[in-house]
Amino acid sequence: MQDGSQRPKVVVVGAGFGGLSVLRGLADQPVDVTVVDRNNFHTFLPLLYQVATSGLNAADVAHPIRAIVQRHRNIDVRHGTVEGVDWDRHEVQVAGQAPLPFDHLVLAAGSTANDFGIPGVAEHGYPLYTLDDAARLRNRVLERFEAAALDQSLIDDGALTFAIVGGGPTGVETAGALAELFDKVLRDDFHTLPVQRARVVLIEMADSLLTPFGTRSRDHAIDALRRRGVEVRLSTRVSSVGVDHVVLDGGERLPAHTLVWAAGVQANPLARVLGVAQGPGGRIVVDRDLSVPDRPGLWAIGDLAHTPGAVEDGGAAPQLAPAAMQAGELVAANVLRMVAGEPTQPFRYRDKGTMATIGRRSAVAEIPGVPILVGSIAWAAWLVLHLVMLIGFRNRLSVLVNWAWNYLTWDRGPRLIFGPGADPPHH
Amino acid sequence: MQDGSQRPKVVVVGAGFGGLSVLRGLADQPVDVTVVDRNNFHTFLPLLYQVATSGLNAADVAHPIRAIVQRHRNIDVRHGTVEGVDWDRHEVQVAGQAPLPFDHLVLAAGSTANDFGIPGVAEHGYPLYTLDDAARLRNRVLERFEAAALDQSLIDDGALTFAIVGGGPTGVETAGALAELFDKVLRDDFHTLPVQRARVVLIEMADSLLTPFGTRSRDHAIDALRRRGVEVRLSTRVSSVGVDHVVLDGGERLPAHTLVWAAGVQANPLARVLGVAQGPGGRIVVDRDLSVPDRPGLWAIGDLAHTPGAVEDGGAAPQLAPAAMQAGELVAANVLRMVAGEPTQPFRYRDKGTMATIGRRSAVAEIPGVPILVGSIAWAAWLVLHLVMLIGFRNRLSVLVNWAWNYLTWDRGPRLIFGPGADPPHH
Repeated sequence: MQDGSQRPKVVVVGAGFGGLSVLRGLADQPVDVTVVDRNNFHTFLPLLYQVATSGLNAADVAHPIRAIVQRHRNIDVRHGTVEGVDWDRHEVQVAGQAPLPFDHLVLAAGSTANDFGIPGVAEHGYPLYTLDDAARLRNRVLERFEAAALDQSLIDDGALTFAIVGGGPTGVETAGALAELFDKVLRDDFHTLPVQRARVVLIEMADSLLTPFGTRSRDHAIDALRRRGVEVRLSTRVSSVGVDHVVLDGGERLPAHTLVWAAGVQANPLARVLGVAQGPGGRIVVDRDLSVPDRPGLWAIGDLAHTPGAVEDGGAAPQLAPAAMQAGELVAANVLRMVAGEPTQPFRYRDKGTMATIGRRSAVAEIPGVPILVGSIAWAAWLVLHLVMLIGFRNRLSVLVNWAWNYLTWDRGPRLIFGPGADPPHH
Repeated sequence: MQDGSQRPKVVVVGAGFGGLSVLRGLADQPVDVTVVDRNNFHTFLPLLYQVATSGLNAADVAHPIRAIVQRHRNIDVRHGTVEGVDWDRHEVQVAGQAPLPFDHLVLAAGSTANDFGIPGVAEHGYPLYTLDDAARLRNRVLERFEAAALDQSLIDDGALTFAIVGGGPTGVETAGALAELFDKVLRDDFHTLPVQRARVVLIEMADSLLTPFGTRSRDHAIDALRRRGVEVRLSTRVSSVGVDHVVLDGGERLPAHTLVWAAGVQANPLARVLGVAQGPGGRIVVDRDLSVPDRPGLWAIGDLAHTPGAVEDGGAAPQLAPAAMQAGELVAANVLRMVAGEPTQPFRYRDKGTMATIGRRSAVAEIPGVPILVGSIAWAAWLVLHLVMLIGFRNRLSVLVNWAWNYLTWDRGPRLIFGPGADPPHH
């Protein structure tokens, strides 16, 4: 990018699935693009739960943003945290850094955990939306086993009870992977501990898991989890959370030192400071072409955007990676259309289906035009799809090697207490 | 391990090369062993510099201790930090945890950086002795490039100058790997930055690098580093260090935001609190059988021990992995001899040679009975040896894949700002 350039300046906030899709659409086009992210890497969110359960290394699900855009000289990278927008100066404010002027600003900053105001969740809950989150949960799980190995009376106290709140894909995948980690790996690692007393309790307020899925998938998920020893508690709400317990709606107190919070998301807090209309979950309400009303040059996509009319029945697109990627593609095209003086096009979400993995040779997949898949074949489809989607040949290879190893040996590799929240246990 | 066991209790402090070697010797023997480490993993120290220079993932050079000893039911693991020893009760004190009683105590806690009292080193220097150190240095290097990309005036201020103090293997390897990282990878990542202005300055107080090596190896190292653009400053001492500069002995002030401290080691501070005789670098002086005089049941090995008489000329064993492993083997055997009522044997260090890598297809290797190797063949020998030594098939495979990738593509993978010290740059 040259100073004094007359080319339109596009700033993209967030290098998730949506942001990267915008970059792909703007690469080598007649615009100067800057992508800002608080990390210097893209995180492959669908596999975070495998980092949290010692199945993959942190680096396997992260890819440097600069490596992704290296070949495109019209794309620059800013490693920083966006704090707000100065509308008068048309500048993005970045914490501790010079502001970034823009002609077009694409918000693709995603979502964070939503605690729905339940007391104690923010302080004690372990969310699973960033690589730091995943490392912190992995460290917590391993550290609680170390603590119980020091003092087995802690087991009754909840040291080895892991409550997971939320029966969507994240909750189901984490529950299944934790149960397998305990049964197949930590049982051997901690031979002085009665590891069979470790509990995984999956708590869901609806009367079924994976509610957007069909009955056959839901039933498979519940059966497969229960076969792995997961306690599935349906129609159950959490009323408060403490450092060593969870209180359920009827007053039941479940001793649990670790609470994984997978109950729902809300828009990135950035949405709040912009002074624009917010819809469900704090998401920014966008027009049909994904521009934000009354804010010329502002666009929002992915988990951060509420897109009424994107689905044929008039509803909004779901908060899924394919929706963010499709929206990113359209926004890139719409920005280029505006630059060329052409009219923008409306967003139309194409359903690519959804999948969730319960564990080894067990998954569910619902893909439009394909019969519902459950069990081994859905698991194989899940593996292939995620390998293909994963960015960077090296990451793919590393994940493939790790998965093959895990499958063949029932072992897991990187059960390291390292990085955020890594400390030895204390009494 | 059973309570009330009459079997002798052996506590091993540290799961480095020395500690693991003790465990190997005591596995499935008639003793109850507990290994204590402040990490739950063994760190493969010779490759730390590759983590620091984005060549390998942190997890590639770490292996869970419990995975290593899993099959041996007489070995238990404690994740904790040893603070001292209660000699009256014959117990090891572990921070925040119950003490560990012992009949034999093997100290294998290694070494830490030695700042030789030079002002500023402790505050501003980046040592390279732990996985945290390596992640911190990697994050610092990448973060300084991000900062310079935001404000190029920082280059004159030293943002892209990396001073490395100490011309031993760690300093030489880090200098070579940084120069390659800048030239082959970051030059493309940061296309708006004049990356050719990044400097790697290797400072050594002696008149040569790699002083324990022969002339041919030393000359090769200096030539190979200079060909890579490293500024080698021999016969130069550091008199003080500031947050953004290094002051050299003659008064020269070198602007450098990052100082890698590889100038020397001292014994783990644990050695100080035990009330035993300390030799050079604070190391515990041991008898010929590696026991500590006047402390029945106490043994010290590896970088923590000073072993006069271990070499034929009467000198002590060097602070190298093979010496620690040989000492660990002997201590395990000597403990078993004492348990069986037999006399102990003296330690005799067998020189296995030394190696150091400068970079791609460049290394030096001096192995007794083999002609001195320099260049590509030494590099190949280095690669094979380190792959073979690396613990865990999975790590070996992962390192092999990473190295093959790096070699074939000139790319590096894990240039992530993540973990200890990971923050976006601020003005």
